[in-house]
Amino acid sequence: MSAEIICVGTELLLGEILNSNAQFLATQLAELGIPHFFQTVVGDNLDRVQQAIATACDRSTLLIFTGGLGPTPDDLTTEAIATFFQSPLVEQVEVIADIERKYALRGREMPESIRKQALLPQGAAVLPNPSGTAPGLIWQPRSNLTLLTFPGVPSEMRRMWSESAVPFLRQQGWNEVISSRTLRFWGIGESVLAEKIAAYFDLTNPTVAPYAGDGEVRLRVTAKAASPAAAQQQIDPIAQQLQAIAGADYFGSDDETLASVVGVLLQQRGETVSVAESCTGGGLGQALTSLSGSSRYFWGGIISYSNEVKQALLGVEAETLIQFGAVSDPVAQQMAAGVRDRLGTTWGISITGIAGPEGGTATKPVGLVYIGIAGAGSVESIACQFGAHHNRALIRHLSVCTALDLLRRRLLSEYSSLQQR
Amino acid sequence: MSAEIICVGTELLLGEILNSNAQFLATQLAELGIPHFFQTVVGDNLDRVQQAIATACDRSTLLIFTGGLGPTPDDLTTEAIATFFQSPLVEQVEVIADIERKYALRGREMPESIRKQALLPQGAAVLPNPSGTAPGLIWQPRSNLTLLTFPGVPSEMRRMWSESAVPFLRQQGWNEVISSRTLRFWGIGESVLAEKIAAYFDLTNPTVAPYAGDGEVRLRVTAKAASPAAAQQQIDPIAQQLQAIAGADYFGSDDETLASVVGVLLQQRGETVSVAESCTGGGLGQALTSLSGSSRYFWGGIISYSNEVKQALLGVEAETLIQFGAVSDPVAQQMAAGVRDRLGTTWGISITGIAGPEGGTATKPVGLVYIGIAGAGSVESIACQFGAHHNRALIRHLSVCTALDLLRRRLLSEYSSLQQR
Repeated sequence: MSAEIICVGTELLLGEILNSNAQFLATQLAELGIPHFFQTVVGDNLDRVQQAIATACDRSTLLIFTGGLGPTPDDLTTEAIATFFQSPLVEQVEVIADIERKYALRGREMPESIRKQALLPQGAAVLPNPSGTAPGLIWQPRSNLTLLTFPGVPSEMRRMWSESAVPFLRQQGWNEVISSRTLRFWGIGESVLAEKIAAYFDLTNPTVAPYAGDGEVRLRVTAKAASPAAAQQQIDPIAQQLQAIAGADYFGSDDETLASVVGVLLQQRGETVSVAESCTGGGLGQALTSLSGSSRYFWGGIISYSNEVKQALLGVEAETLIQFGAVSDPVAQQMAAGVRDRLGTTWGISITGIAGPEGGTATKPVGLVYIGIAGAGSVESIACQFGAHHNRALIRHLSVCTALDLLRRRLLSEYSSLQQR
Repeated sequence: MSAEIICVGTELLLGEILNSNAQFLATQLAELGIPHFFQTVVGDNLDRVQQAIATACDRSTLLIFTGGLGPTPDDLTTEAIATFFQSPLVEQVEVIADIERKYALRGREMPESIRKQALLPQGAAVLPNPSGTAPGLIWQPRSNLTLLTFPGVPSEMRRMWSESAVPFLRQQGWNEVISSRTLRFWGIGESVLAEKIAAYFDLTNPTVAPYAGDGEVRLRVTAKAASPAAAQQQIDPIAQQLQAIAGADYFGSDDETLASVVGVLLQQRGETVSVAESCTGGGLGQALTSLSGSSRYFWGGIISYSNEVKQALLGVEAETLIQFGAVSDPVAQQMAAGVRDRLGTTWGISITGIAGPEGGTATKPVGLVYIGIAGAGSVESIACQFGAHHNRALIRHLSVCTALDLLRRRLLSEYSSLQQR
C-alpha cells in the first residue's frame, strides 16, 4: 500500500491558506508506517479533481482527500469521486438525522442546501464527523484501492482522523512504526558535514538525511521497526556515531535549541549570564528567555544601541569608540566585561555589528559582527563575516545563534576549536 | 499557459515542515494572473520526481520546482529534469566562480561536493541565487514548456523569485495585474471588525477579505485591472473608507509594521525611545531595531529579568517590589520612568508579566502583562490579560505588539481610546 494526499481547494491554489492539513496527515502516515510518495493540490473544479483521482489511482492505493465536503456549489469532492467511479450518489438517512440533531441543539433549522452533505457514493461507509456537519467517507470502489475523505477544517479533520481513520487503518494491518530523531549542528556547513559522514547516507534502516537553513545543519535519523522502543534502539547507535564524528559542532537533538542547551549547561554549573547588545537590539536576550525558567541563569542585559548608552551604562571608553569604532573587537570586549561587571553575572556576552542594509563601509561591510565573551578572568571576542548578501533579519539571527554557540562552546571548554573558525 | 508547482523533498512527505513555499508561489502566480491548477509534492527519489514531471508536463506549461538543488546525494531535482528530458548535465563555469567567490568571502575553501550545484542541463540558463550557493535554472526543454527551479530554503527562493523569475515571466507577457493591499489592524477582534465593514465583503472588484492571526487582523483589498496604476486606483477609495471606519485600530498597510509606524511617528516629532523589558527579555528592543536606521530614534534599553537588575539599573524601589510584586502597575511605571531617565529619551516603554507556562498564580495568572509608558511629564500603565491558554511565544509576541501599539496611539494622541480597552 502507498498513500497519496489530495487536497481540494481553490484557496490553496491562490495561496490564501497554508496547507497544514497535508503536513498533519503526512506525520500521521509516517507514524503508522504507511508509505506516502505524493501529495496533490487541486482546485474546486469537477474535471480537474477527476484528473487528480485518475493520476493518483495509477500510483497509490490509499487516497486521502481533504476539503470540498461542504454545502456550497464549490464543494464537489464527493461528486467528483462518484462521477469518476461511475457510482450513483445516495442520501444517507442517518447522516441527515445527525445533521438535523446538531442544528436542533443550536436551536436552528437545517437549511435545505446542507442535505448535499448527506450524499455518498453507493457502497461507501460514513466516516463520522463529531465536530461538524460534513461527514467523510471510507470506500473501496475497487480491489486494492481505498478512499478516505475529510473536510478541510483542520480541527474537524484531525478529530475524524484520530477517532475513525486510525482505527480503520490499524485494522488493515498498519501497525508499523517509523520514528526519527533530528541531530542539530552549528558552526559547520552542510557540505562539510555531509562529506565527513558520507558513508551514513547509504544506510537503509535507519536512514540518515541532511537539511540546512539559516545557518543550522540538521541530520535526520529515521528507523522503521515493530515498536517505538525498537525504533529508538536502532537510532541510538547511529546517532551516537554521528555526534562523535561532529564533535562540538553537534549541539542538540529534536526540540533542543542553542538557547536551551546553554541554559542546561549554565544550570549544571550554577552560573549566570547577562547580555550587551547593539545590532541585535535585544534578540539575544529574547532567545535566552524563550524558555520558562530562564530566570535561574539569565539576569538581564543592556541594549546599547547608541554609543552614549555603550559609554554610560556599559563603561565602554570614549577613546576606544573613536579609535576603533563601535563595531570592533575592543568595543565588543568592553561591552561584554561591562555587562558582566554591572549585573554581577558569571558570564557577559556582547554583540556589535552592522546588520544592514544601511551602514556598511569598505572596511566594515554589512554582515561584519563582533561577539564578545567575558568569563571569570578573561575577555575574548571573535569577528564574524556573515556576508553582505544576507538580509538584516538573517544577519541578526546568525549573530544571536553564533553568540549562543560561543557561550555553549566555552561552557563545554572547547574554546580552542573556536579560535580556528 | 498554466503553471504547476512541484515541491521536492522527503521532509514534506514526512510532515516535518509546512509547505510555505507552495503558498508563497501560489500568491505570486495569482498576482501575475498566471492560471495555476495543480501542486505536487514528491520525495527525494529520482524515479518519482520524473513521474511527477511526466504528469505535470501533460497538463501544465510552466513547471516551478522548489527543493533538491543542494550538494548532497539526496538533492536530485536537476538530475531528474536532465534525465527526463534526456539532456546531459554541463558544469557552469560562472556558477563555480560565483560559489568560490562566496566561500572566499567567508574565508573558507569550497568543498568538492558543492561542484554538483553548478551542473545544469545543456541549454538551460542559470537562475542566479544571490543569497546562497545553489542556483536555479530557467529552461525551455521543448516548445510551450518552461521550467524554473529554486532551492527549498524559503529566503533564497523568495529573493530569486522576485529578482529573476518575475521579470522573466513579465517579459513572457504575464502582465495582467492583480494587485492587492493589506490593511493591518491592532486592538480590534476579527469578528468585531468584520461586523463593522460587513457590506464590503459583497464587493466583486475590488474584493475585500479578512484574515486574522497572532492578535493582528488584516483586510486584503484585491483589484484586477489592466495596469498596476489602474488597480491601485480601484483599491484607493475602498481602502480609505475601511481605514476611516476602523479609526485608530488601523495602523498600516502591507509591509508597514507596528515598529515601522512607531519609527516614522517618532522621527516626525524628533523624539526618541528606550525600553525596559522583563518577560519579553529583549523582544521589544529587537522589534524596534528590526529596521535599518532605527538608531535615529531608538537609543537602547535595559533587560531587567531579575528583580536585582530592576532595582540596580532602573531604580525600581525594593518596597514596591515587595508590596505589589514585579508584575504590577507600579513596577511597570517605575521601569518605564527609570529607563527614560537613565537613557535620556523622550519615551520609556516597559513590559513586565507572566509569559508562562510556569510562574502563574491565582491572582496573577499566566498571560497577565503590565505595560508602562513614560512620556515627557507623565507615567501610565495598562494591564493586559492575554489568556493563560496561549503559549509563551504568543504571550511574548502579544506583549511586544501591544507595547508598540500603546506608544503608537500615544504618538497619535489617542490615549483616551486606549484607556477604554
